[in-house]
Amino acid sequence: MGKQLKITFIHLADASPNSRCCLNLKAGEAASGDQHDLCSKDGQKHMDYILTYSTKKLFSDLHPSLSLKEKTCCLSCCQPCARDQSLRKYHGGTQKQSLRSQEEEKVLCREEFEDNLKKMGLHLEKDESNRISGVGFLKIHAPWDILCREAEFLKLKMPTKEFYQATPQHKMRKLNAFFKRITAPLLPNVGDTETEDIKKVCYPFSREKLHLSHSTYYSTVCMQCRTLTVNLFLQVLYREWASYSNFYKYQPISLIRKYFGEKIGLYFAWLGLYTQMLIFAAIVGVLVFLYGCITVDDDIPSMEICDKRNNITMCPLCDKSCSYWKLTMACGTARASHLFDSTATVLFSIFMALWAAMFMESWKRRQMRLNYMWDLTNFEEEEVSNEYFAALHAKAAKLTWRDRMPAYMTFIFLMTFAILFGVIIYRVTTQASLQMSSMPSIRANVRLTVKSTAVIINVVVILILDEVYSKIARWLTILEVPKTDKSFEQRLILKTFILKFLNAFSPIFYIAFIRGKTANTASSYGVLFKQSFSPQCAHTGCLMELCIQLSITMLGKQLIQNNLFEIGIPKLKKLIRRIKTKRAPVQEEQDDKDLKRYEADFFLEPFVSLNPEYMEMIIQFGFVTLFVASFPLAPLFALLNNVIEIRLDAKKFVAELRRPVAARAKDIGIWYNLLRGISKAAIIVNAFVIAFTSDFIPRLVYQYGYSPDGTMHGFINHTLSYFNVSHFQAETHPLQPLHLGYKVEVCRYKDYRMAPWSFNPYDISKVYWAILAGRLAFVIIFQNVVMLLSDFVDWVIPDIPKEIITRIYEEKMQMVEFFMREEHSLYSMPMLDNQDENRPTPQLRRS
Amino acid sequence: MGKQLKITFIHLADASPNSRCCLNLKAGEAASGDQHDLCSKDGQKHMDYILTYSTKKLFSDLHPSLSLKEKTCCLSCCQPCARDQSLRKYHGGTQKQSLRSQEEEKVLCREEFEDNLKKMGLHLEKDESNRISGVGFLKIHAPWDILCREAEFLKLKMPTKEFYQATPQHKMRKLNAFFKRITAPLLPNVGDTETEDIKKVCYPFSREKLHLSHSTYYSTVCMQCRTLTVNLFLQVLYREWASYSNFYKYQPISLIRKYFGEKIGLYFAWLGLYTQMLIFAAIVGVLVFLYGCITVDDDIPSMEICDKRNNITMCPLCDKSCSYWKLTMACGTARASHLFDSTATVLFSIFMALWAAMFMESWKRRQMRLNYMWDLTNFEEEEVSNEYFAALHAKAAKLTWRDRMPAYMTFIFLMTFAILFGVIIYRVTTQASLQMSSMPSIRANVRLTVKSTAVIINVVVILILDEVYSKIARWLTILEVPKTDKSFEQRLILKTFILKFLNAFSPIFYIAFIRGKTANTASSYGVLFKQSFSPQCAHTGCLMELCIQLSITMLGKQLIQNNLFEIGIPKLKKLIRRIKTKRAPVQEEQDDKDLKRYEADFFLEPFVSLNPEYMEMIIQFGFVTLFVASFPLAPLFALLNNVIEIRLDAKKFVAELRRPVAARAKDIGIWYNLLRGISKAAIIVNAFVIAFTSDFIPRLVYQYGYSPDGTMHGFINHTLSYFNVSHFQAETHPLQPLHLGYKVEVCRYKDYRMAPWSFNPYDISKVYWAILAGRLAFVIIFQNVVMLLSDFVDWVIPDIPKEIITRIYEEKMQMVEFFMREEHSLYSMPMLDNQDENRPTPQLRRS
Repeated sequence: MGKQLKITFIHLADASPNSRCCLNLKAGEAASGDQHDLCSKDGQKHMDYILTYSTKKLFSDLHPSLSLKEKTCCLSCCQPCARDQSLRKYHGGTQKQSLRSQEEEKVLCREEFEDNLKKMGLHLEKDESNRISGVGFLKIHAPWDILCREAEFLKLKMPTKEFYQATPQHKMRKLNAFFKRITAPLLPNVGDTETEDIKKVCYPFSREKLHLSHSTYYSTVCMQCRTLTVNLFLQVLYREWASYSNFYKYQPISLIRKYFGEKIGLYFAWLGLYTQMLIFAAIVGVLVFLYGCITVDDDIPSMEICDKRNNITMCPLCDKSCSYWKLTMACGTARASHLFDSTATVLFSIFMALWAAMFMESWKRRQMRLNYMWDLTNFEEEEVSNEYFAALHAKAAKLTWRDRMPAYMTFIFLMTFAILFGVIIYRVTTQASLQMSSMPSIRANVRLTVKSTAVIINVVVILILDEVYSKIARWLTILEVPKTDKSFEQRLILKTFILKFLNAFSPIFYIAFIRGKTANTASSYGVLFKQSFSPQCAHTGCLMELCIQLSITMLGKQLIQNNLFEIGIPKLKKLIRRIKTKRAPVQEEQDDKDLKRYEADFFLEPFVSLNPEYMEMIIQFGFVTLFVASFPLAPLFALLNNVIEIRLDAKKFVAELRRPVAARAKDIGIWYNLLRGISKAAIIVNAFVIAFTSDFIPRLVYQYGYSPDGTMHGFINHTLSYFNVSHFQAETHPLQPLHLGYKVEVCRYKDYRMAPWSFNPYDISKVYWAILAGRLAFVIIFQNVVMLLSDFVDWVIPDIPKEIITRIYEEKMQMVEFFMREEHSLYSMPMLDNQDENRPTPQLRRS
Repeated sequence: MGKQLKITFIHLADASPNSRCCLNLKAGEAASGDQHDLCSKDGQKHMDYILTYSTKKLFSDLHPSLSLKEKTCCLSCCQPCARDQSLRKYHGGTQKQSLRSQEEEKVLCREEFEDNLKKMGLHLEKDESNRISGVGFLKIHAPWDILCREAEFLKLKMPTKEFYQATPQHKMRKLNAFFKRITAPLLPNVGDTETEDIKKVCYPFSREKLHLSHSTYYSTVCMQCRTLTVNLFLQVLYREWASYSNFYKYQPISLIRKYFGEKIGLYFAWLGLYTQMLIFAAIVGVLVFLYGCITVDDDIPSMEICDKRNNITMCPLCDKSCSYWKLTMACGTARASHLFDSTATVLFSIFMALWAAMFMESWKRRQMRLNYMWDLTNFEEEEVSNEYFAALHAKAAKLTWRDRMPAYMTFIFLMTFAILFGVIIYRVTTQASLQMSSMPSIRANVRLTVKSTAVIINVVVILILDEVYSKIARWLTILEVPKTDKSFEQRLILKTFILKFLNAFSPIFYIAFIRGKTANTASSYGVLFKQSFSPQCAHTGCLMELCIQLSITMLGKQLIQNNLFEIGIPKLKKLIRRIKTKRAPVQEEQDDKDLKRYEADFFLEPFVSLNPEYMEMIIQFGFVTLFVASFPLAPLFALLNNVIEIRLDAKKFVAELRRPVAARAKDIGIWYNLLRGISKAAIIVNAFVIAFTSDFIPRLVYQYGYSPDGTMHGFINHTLSYFNVSHFQAETHPLQPLHLGYKVEVCRYKDYRMAPWSFNPYDISKVYWAILAGRLAFVIIFQNVVMLLSDFVDWVIPDIPKEIITRIYEEKMQMVEFFMREEHSLYSMPMLDNQDENRPTPQLRRS
């Protein structure tokens, strides 16, 4: 890995709205200031791409953001040199010698690379000015015929002279017009973008059919536009997109795509749609929460808990140090629990599962629409073999799964570690804060605040681990030696996702399903009841604690990651880079004015990949869907975060990063599968949360199976079993038995067990089994009904909008006709005598 | 619907191996006999397609097999006439007048249609001989330039001069060679087919690039081959494919595709793969059955049932007419049940779920491989609007869901009807045969044979209903007025599938999940136990009855549908057609010799669609997967059936049908989704069968929760509750209480209830709830584990074989290089000075 040559690509189009392209000059505009930066010395050729290389400190700092692809690009041309070098190393030689020879070799390598570029037909020009010490610039120009040839191989679709006007759908026209008037203020003010209804008919570029193009000159411009700085775009983007004041507006997606390429365009389109869909979820979530607030006073179980007349003495919650307590002390928690654990929550879980299915469907449709608008319908992504790893593969002729075994094993170990560590961190923090306040005066209500501080510590640990895990995942992926770039990215994403997911969610899963479940099952049939009061959730189930953990983890992650990491760290990095090139910050402003556009852009942070952005959103999607049954406000928090996130990302892309190389993409790739996986998992997780973590099923069973009058009255009493304090085992007696002021003979605890005076004391009661059967039945019904509904949504909503199918078909037909007409004017076609009136009927053509 | 003109397309290539094409003649072969049939009168042009029309009886018989597409093709050209006619009708006119005028109009319509064909550049030639009364023939020839133009629009891939040789994978070479030697005798002997490793590099046809084609003359042949009779093919197909003696061989798929087109090729490839996969399932199924046979003597529960010492008196199985019986009488059934209900069955269910997932994956890979071999990788299917329905849509300007409402409602009604009717038929037949033998002498073992006869009657009714339902589904789909042909087909398939599925499976679902479950739950808490012994399954659960129903339904459907319907009915139809054209069967042989090839083929059955073939297989797939937990031999039966089915279908396509119009297709369409749906449903159905229909869970619960010594001893006693005969309600006493020879005071029945002497007599016991919880937990675990495993299989096995990815990529690279070379020899490319040594590095081209 130490052999890479430091050649950095700076993409021509850069981040501040000052540069212009030569094409604009040609078109007759006045040239001023630094507009000549990107022209060749004779002012005739426009520079399309700029490479940088290190001229001095060869070894010191590998550019931190060189993507693998770029690295291997260098490597592949350097292979002969590298081979020589390793040979030389093998034959011995001092460290100093090798350092010097390496330096020389790198120059040789660079020259070979440049030669190869020239052989491909590219024009190169060196920037000799050398204003920034240690950095050299190499300008590249791609001539017209090279562009044409490549466009033909890539089957780029080019516009013809023909326009396609979508036939407006009759019945929807009024509705559409109304909708357009309503949403008009929400549209970004980007001037004369193409309207959706008129579109140039496009065809896969072919040099033979150049005469059909919209206009030869225009198509030149258009082809270059994809890689050229277009001044206007950036100004518009800066004003209409990357500003917080536009938070309520749609994003100018087609402009984003024109400037940044399809891949980044798709990310923002996806983020936009996700945020839009979150609005509905947030509204319903807030309504569910409000429903809980309104009905909290009518909730019979919490009324019974708060009722002082009931005077129920509860058993201690831990051995020795805890003492008996009164149920009324849990009043506050019980009322708070109700806010999140009402009947509406069950409906909300179903709603959110369908919402997720709807979201996936909407995205598929939106993606298809964008594919059509961006002429990607026939585009097929290619697997580009990663030549760095390909070289490794070639070396180690057979690379089987055995060689990858260590990487796999490490990953499995790491997964286990992530799970355990997550839970341990949670338990340690909780225990520590509990210990701090485990004096006899502890009150059920105070516990909440104690827990909250514990969770905050927990979140900080999670955030630190997050960074560690992503580094490890990258390291492990490199160990696995994947063959192609796509495979590398997929493996990396999958690993990072699994580790980050486990990191964030393992404490939450622990609270939801394990804690408080293991506590009372130690006793077995016939043996004397051994009551060990291990840490339990509050009386009304673990739902409240789950809710606290969820909300704080989610908020913490969002606030800290967004503000600290996304804004702070890039600024820090920029500072470090400037310091490294040894310019005093005082000089900076003066220097900045002198520098050419691309020289100034060298100090910007390079674009690495979209993966961290997606990752953040996917984990958030997990918070929104996975445990929504216990925290209906999650969509609201996510919405608020994302409204900011969009503009934050926009600012970053427009002003803080070098312009990324535009990449074509048809879809969001593996992220879609991860989303799908999460929304599938969400169904079963929510089923279990409702069945086992909340009190929904016991209440239902009580109301319809055991209640004497069909109401919830008596429910609390029904859930509490009796315990005779004389049955306490040695050393587990509470130290302060008289804490409540009277001697306790029988206390109550939350479980379904036989009374001490029954035939089988402390044995699991029939009610327990009935309720368990109820819970399990609920899981089966919920899971299958919701899965069926999701599949139904998936099936009913067509993946490709009807309108787009019609338009693709009509456009194709129009293109065929257009070609026929053009052909007629070129060749003479004897069989088409009167082709104006009687165009061939289409059905036979399509047979 | 009465307005269609009778124009039938007879596809040129026909079913008997006698005809030759003019191209072969050109190539220098001797012309003999009827080889001139398909040439134009001057012997120069080859006829590509033949249309037939009715010359006399215009109204009498609409050709029964006219596909909708063909009908509308006629309609669309007739629309002006039809409009005139309706106008005339509006102005009045006698019935006779209109009949005559309709006849005339049809001739006009036909002439207009022919004119349109001519305008498209096709050459027409009428067959004036008129040998078959009432039928006219119109030969069509498509000239070379028309073929080229259409090929260009269809982006047909054509072979170039370049060959692509797949690089053999190093490590697999030996294994592959071994595998090839092993499978050599299984390969069909089809002579010189292309080997898989060498393939012509193909490119989307373009007239400008004609010089790149493999050979101009060859590509002509190749293009026409798709629609031409190639004598050799058919002989080979007849010998190597459509013969039962080849039952153990692979099918010559590439030949099938060349002769019948991709769509039919895919069907046979799919059927072949399915049959191949069934071999594994059948072997494992037989092993599971054998395991049951071997362990039947060690099965403690059936030993206890058969043990005469246990002497358990059972309560009567029905009111009044039934009497008490001894448990030992159920010995035979219990032992038979064990054959299908051993622990191995659970593992087999899991295996079959994974098998289904593997099958789906294998098919995806096979499909992809075929797509690559057949150069379909870039082919996109087009939605062809069905112009008959399009005309209806245009008439009724807005056709909303309201207009389709009646069709939808009818369908929902029909579904309900199908379910109920299926169950009712089952109950009636069972009841009738039970009544026949409900004398007191009834023995538990005799019941099986009685039931079997009931099931056979049931199957016959199912088969009759099957035909009725498919007619109704077609009618309903036409009512719905779908817009495109694809939509028509999909709707039709879905409807037919749902109805046929419900028809076949509703009695089975009834037996598995409803029968015997409702019997004992009538009692409610606190009310005196009301024991109503409604028809119950035998003692060891309903599994045995389920098994009988399944096996007989499956075998019956296969035997009757295969032999009677698929072989008999086509022969009958052919006979009827001959009679209709009024030729005495005596003349037949003489006539056959005189007739031209296409005239003789007119008497063959036309090809309608593949749907019935697929439907049969999908329903069979349902039998194989859905209830496999109760009938492990199902895959074996399916395998035996399919081995015959392949050759039967082959014979039909080669010798009994007119040659179908070759259609391109990339996949098997909606059938794949149906398969996927069934394999998903299979998981949950099998989970429920094991949990609720079999005794698997009660045994587990007994063994690990209640057994005093951890064995199954005492299990039977544990499953039986006590009933005090003095608690029989009035009129439910058995009429012959002394049937067993002694007075019964307490009898036993199969349920988990409290004893008559307990605190809550006949109340559901705790064991019941525990077992219910166990059953439900099993369903959840089974469903989710198996679903996860299936998804894992889906994820681990890549949809596109690695080898194919490499080959597609390499072929593309080779094509690019080939084009570059060709280009260099045509234009002069200044930037490629020494392109032989330094070919442009690929990575920049792909950026």
